[in-house]
Amino acid sequence: MTEHIVRSYDAELESLRRSLAEMGGMSERMLGDSTVALVRRDTTLAQKVISADQRLDNLQRDVEERAVLTIARRQPLANDLRELISAIRIASDIERVGDLAKNIAKRAVAISGQFSPPHRAVVGLEHMSRLVQAQLKDVLDAYATSNEQKALEVWHRDGEIDALYTSLFRELLTYMMEDPRNITFCTHLLFCAKNVERIGDHTTNIAETIHYLVTGESLDINRPKLETTDITVEAVTGS
Amino acid sequence: MTEHIVRSYDAELESLRRSLAEMGGMSERMLGDSTVALVRRDTTLAQKVISADQRLDNLQRDVEERAVLTIARRQPLANDLRELISAIRIASDIERVGDLAKNIAKRAVAISGQFSPPHRAVVGLEHMSRLVQAQLKDVLDAYATSNEQKALEVWHRDGEIDALYTSLFRELLTYMMEDPRNITFCTHLLFCAKNVERIGDHTTNIAETIHYLVTGESLDINRPKLETTDITVEAVTGS
Repeated sequence: MTEHIVRSYDAELESLRRSLAEMGGMSERMLGDSTVALVRRDTTLAQKVISADQRLDNLQRDVEERAVLTIARRQPLANDLRELISAIRIASDIERVGDLAKNIAKRAVAISGQFSPPHRAVVGLEHMSRLVQAQLKDVLDAYATSNEQKALEVWHRDGEIDALYTSLFRELLTYMMEDPRNITFCTHLLFCAKNVERIGDHTTNIAETIHYLVTGESLDINRPKLETTDITVEAVTGS
Repeated sequence: MTEHIVRSYDAELESLRRSLAEMGGMSERMLGDSTVALVRRDTTLAQKVISADQRLDNLQRDVEERAVLTIARRQPLANDLRELISAIRIASDIERVGDLAKNIAKRAVAISGQFSPPHRAVVGLEHMSRLVQAQLKDVLDAYATSNEQKALEVWHRDGEIDALYTSLFRELLTYMMEDPRNITFCTHLLFCAKNVERIGDHTTNIAETIHYLVTGESLDINRPKLETTDITVEAVTGS
């Protein structure tokens, strides 16, 4: 194998990593913007998030195609094969983060004309979204720097998000029971909270992929949420 | 290439298709059982669905690994590469169908002790789930027989599911507004309805993969839902 071919193979991997970094940055912005759009009832910002999703979908398809073609063309061995499989998996998780953020943005549009529930209801969601934004940023940094320790920290923190979701779920049900005029708005907030929780799950998936990438092994012990959430809580929220 | 190697490559593809057929059958049963568990408040059946999900996850990982190793080892050309990429994509969609059915089963457990809303509320969900079960069965048959026409029919019918979801969403909000005691139960039903709708989206994804597998082209025109659901309806349900 000539030096030229080796370099060009590295260039392919490098280009995939750059696309993933771009996708990661987009998904972070989409989550942040969709939350601001929801809190401030800013439908213009919401529309911006909705439009951005198409580009993220295209990038994901592109990463997947390039990674598969590289696998087919180069017959990579263990390490490089893991790098390519990881790129495919992480692209898929980021793409779904974008879908979930888009869904929050659509709900921001849906509730823009609705009766306003207590502002506390939105504050809880904003807080939860900030935590998940930090998780997403940390896990993407961990991937960019192949920092398995940092990825594991993200993985262990997922329990906090689940606990917040459970408490927010109960709080929103309370507002709905207090005043039926809150029902439509709070229902949308419930779905938004669920979306944010699911984005948290995707950051955990990415952390697991980084572990696999760096160590070659699967993180197949139980998810952190099983340590911190008991079955009763699970039964309440169906998470 | 000897006859022996060719046969063994076909055997690998055949074995992947068998695993996918097993996964498909499992996901169909999980959706059917979780719906029955919800309607009859059968927590034993719900637990069965919850336990089944682990096996489906393992099968998905297994299909993904085998398909990638085959790509890396055999350097397949266009047709065979499409077959392997399609197997990876379809396994991922089926695995998510299983996750969503498991979530319905968890909610069946969560609401087993709750105040019962009007039976009509559950009937609407059961009807929607039956339609999606038929879609899932049809698209899996279409894959097993490489029937692109049948896959396209499934793809075009997704609009019906979305319309049903929108009407069910409104109906459930009405029950919640009529009597606050319905709120917890109906909230879980709303999430179940959303899960069923998302399973419908996965059958559409599988139909798109079959189209790609058979024709080599992406079905990148707009999803059928955009033809049948206008922006107002989308805004109401956030779908």
